[in-house]
Amino acid sequence: MATSSNRVGQKDFDDWLDSRRQAHAFEIRRVPFSELDGWHFEGRTGNLAHRSGRFFRVEGLRVRILDGQGTQWHQPVIVQPEVGILGILMKRFNGEPHFLMQAKMEPGNPNLLQLSPTVQATRSNYMRVHKGADVRYLDYFRGARRGKVIADVLQSEHGWWFYRKRNRNIILETEDDVPEHEDFCWLTLDQINELMRRDNLVNMDSRTVLANLPAATVRPRGSGSADPFIRAIMASRDPLAGSLSTTPALLSWIVSQRSEPVVETARVGLRGLPGWYQTPDEIAREDRRHFRIVGVKVRADNREVTSWSQPLLEPMGVGIAAFIVKEFGGVLHVLVHSKIEGGFLDTIELGPTVQCRPGNYDEADAPLFLDYILAAGKSRIRFEAVHSEEGGRFLHAQSRYLVVEADDTLTGKIPDEYTWITLWQMADLLRHGGYLQVQARVLIACMNGLG
Amino acid sequence: MATSSNRVGQKDFDDWLDSRRQAHAFEIRRVPFSELDGWHFEGRTGNLAHRSGRFFRVEGLRVRILDGQGTQWHQPVIVQPEVGILGILMKRFNGEPHFLMQAKMEPGNPNLLQLSPTVQATRSNYMRVHKGADVRYLDYFRGARRGKVIADVLQSEHGWWFYRKRNRNIILETEDDVPEHEDFCWLTLDQINELMRRDNLVNMDSRTVLANLPAATVRPRGSGSADPFIRAIMASRDPLAGSLSTTPALLSWIVSQRSEPVVETARVGLRGLPGWYQTPDEIAREDRRHFRIVGVKVRADNREVTSWSQPLLEPMGVGIAAFIVKEFGGVLHVLVHSKIEGGFLDTIELGPTVQCRPGNYDEADAPLFLDYILAAGKSRIRFEAVHSEEGGRFLHAQSRYLVVEADDTLTGKIPDEYTWITLWQMADLLRHGGYLQVQARVLIACMNGLG
Repeated sequence: MATSSNRVGQKDFDDWLDSRRQAHAFEIRRVPFSELDGWHFEGRTGNLAHRSGRFFRVEGLRVRILDGQGTQWHQPVIVQPEVGILGILMKRFNGEPHFLMQAKMEPGNPNLLQLSPTVQATRSNYMRVHKGADVRYLDYFRGARRGKVIADVLQSEHGWWFYRKRNRNIILETEDDVPEHEDFCWLTLDQINELMRRDNLVNMDSRTVLANLPAATVRPRGSGSADPFIRAIMASRDPLAGSLSTTPALLSWIVSQRSEPVVETARVGLRGLPGWYQTPDEIAREDRRHFRIVGVKVRADNREVTSWSQPLLEPMGVGIAAFIVKEFGGVLHVLVHSKIEGGFLDTIELGPTVQCRPGNYDEADAPLFLDYILAAGKSRIRFEAVHSEEGGRFLHAQSRYLVVEADDTLTGKIPDEYTWITLWQMADLLRHGGYLQVQARVLIACMNGLG
Repeated sequence: MATSSNRVGQKDFDDWLDSRRQAHAFEIRRVPFSELDGWHFEGRTGNLAHRSGRFFRVEGLRVRILDGQGTQWHQPVIVQPEVGILGILMKRFNGEPHFLMQAKMEPGNPNLLQLSPTVQATRSNYMRVHKGADVRYLDYFRGARRGKVIADVLQSEHGWWFYRKRNRNIILETEDDVPEHEDFCWLTLDQINELMRRDNLVNMDSRTVLANLPAATVRPRGSGSADPFIRAIMASRDPLAGSLSTTPALLSWIVSQRSEPVVETARVGLRGLPGWYQTPDEIAREDRRHFRIVGVKVRADNREVTSWSQPLLEPMGVGIAAFIVKEFGGVLHVLVHSKIEGGFLDTIELGPTVQCRPGNYDEADAPLFLDYILAAGKSRIRFEAVHSEEGGRFLHAQSRYLVVEADDTLTGKIPDEYTWITLWQMADLLRHGGYLQVQARVLIACMNGLG
């Protein structure tokens, strides 16, 4: 390592990441389902499961929206009824918080190796179902704590792809002398914010954990800035700044969105799922939209076990997830969308202004504000990067994450399922699980580097 | 009415309630299931449902706790996948908040008529499935609001008896001249607190809504009191008072309780439910513990419709729900219990220190702290009253609600699934649904009158 304690400058970081890439040989190969070791389609239901009964399963899901219009669909869904741990250790060096990040391979990552949290482990992982090595630094996050809790909250994962999956997002500040493994490195929030602007580098688990940083910990860098946009962001992180909705009114709006319509889901068999077909290599929709299920074989030497095979969910095309932001009374507000996703535990969570895979819609059905986002000039795009979702479950699931500043053409009535909310209000909601879904949290983490 | 605006003194209140009882003739009669108009046992599953497909259903539920010990049970459960409205209108007369309460009959109430919220309506009610009269004052709580939101939150109902049932608990302050119907009456919080000490008078829906009053609205009556208990309660409502756990540590503890074990539930048919039997008159457990399902016919002339029949859930015996409270550093703390109930949406919610029906346990399995509660001397019982649960679904479901001050014998280690929490921390959690279950909320409402 370039410095003691694995703290690195930008150049050193790139060298370190290269060294990690070179130190480990990875190989990913698509295979038919029949070549997935330990996986099989169960007799009666046709669900795809592991012989151990653990890890995860691919089942069928029927979703009915009781909205009087008979809205209903079927889809495969990943079922994993256990809470994983996503934990980042934080430690101050010379007073400045550093975060212990890990160079970690996941088979579904477009570039395989990305920066993950200190600990990223399903319960199956750390209960050692696959008889692999111990999970490093897990002790900090389980049992008797050795540190101060900065954040600890159950947050949902992708509601379109997972059935009621939640992970425990933890940030823990320690004063210990933490023993450092060569795959781990301490980074400042500034460094992470810079890396977040690179495509496919900071993995999804890191992004969701970092979204839970309290507003006060996200350092106000733009203090005294002449840029009104930066000043509006800083005001937006201030609990005393004026917001368009008071917090009681905001909570009341969320409750009204959550109360109707009723969303009724039923887990059904994967076999014969209406609208989907199955071949030896894939389970896909008849119109080939949305996503498909495929199989891969993995060989790696720095994982808990050195080779395995598994199903992955592969989305069709690159997605878009975007916040529209706008300053009201000197305070930046974000336009969030109350979203129904079939796999949510509760009816709705708040999501990006726009979230979709544009190729999956006929033009007439395009989501609201999509055209507005796509037409935005460069000067209004305050953040842009392509990030991929959880590479342990999703194959090349890339989305373009955007923060777009509204211009004066965005007037007119905002539909009732959208609302304007400040960064402080979002941070306040994030102390509790179930309010902000994963793509919204990623955008919040992206905004940590603004202002 | 004795005064203008239906505001009444205590004597007037009793006269008014008597007049309401006399004005309406009610008749409740137990009947076999075959005499329930519109209800039938469905073919394949044996579930008990209404021919309209609405109101509610009685189904079977299988609950598995994945705790390594194979804990599992079956039970009937009430399924009602819609969010009802429990709304109380608040209005200031001469500056003092008054709450608009309704004298309302429910067939399961031991004394039939109790005080309910201004609006107590399932979605089926207000969408007028049963073609009854309009629900009075509903407009205040649906659609365009005519008032200021004091509280608006989705709270769970009984997790042992309902499957994932939640109601919207709303308190709305209005400045309107509210037209008054003779079944309604404005009461101050002091008056309600006094009535809460009478047995079976303030109904469950009123109690759960009143639990959501912000701490600041619960008037500090004991200001300057010499009684250290009263002073400790007042300190407990102060956001700045010292608590044994900081709020981040408290939230982290809740997350840890919620993360393990996994609770897996499956809705199964009522027919052939293991451990239960069915006769023409009841569905009950083979050991006749816990509860049974029965049928009643109702005749009333002040309800939306004047007669109907329905199933009700009848618990076996009178329950106990108790908080143990204790002062630490001059601040009262409440000992809450992290409870798994099969019908919760999430794994756990916080409940009373003790909640059970004593007759339903062998002595060796008695809940922790039950003996401690039962042995408490009169001077340590700070609140005591018998209240019944939701009379629209539960028949004579009475529980003794107790607030017991700990003495010095309560030392020793508190098990990990219990924690001490202040009244302010509870009020803070109550702004969000899913943290405090219904019996805990009732006890919080009972404590509104202390200190």
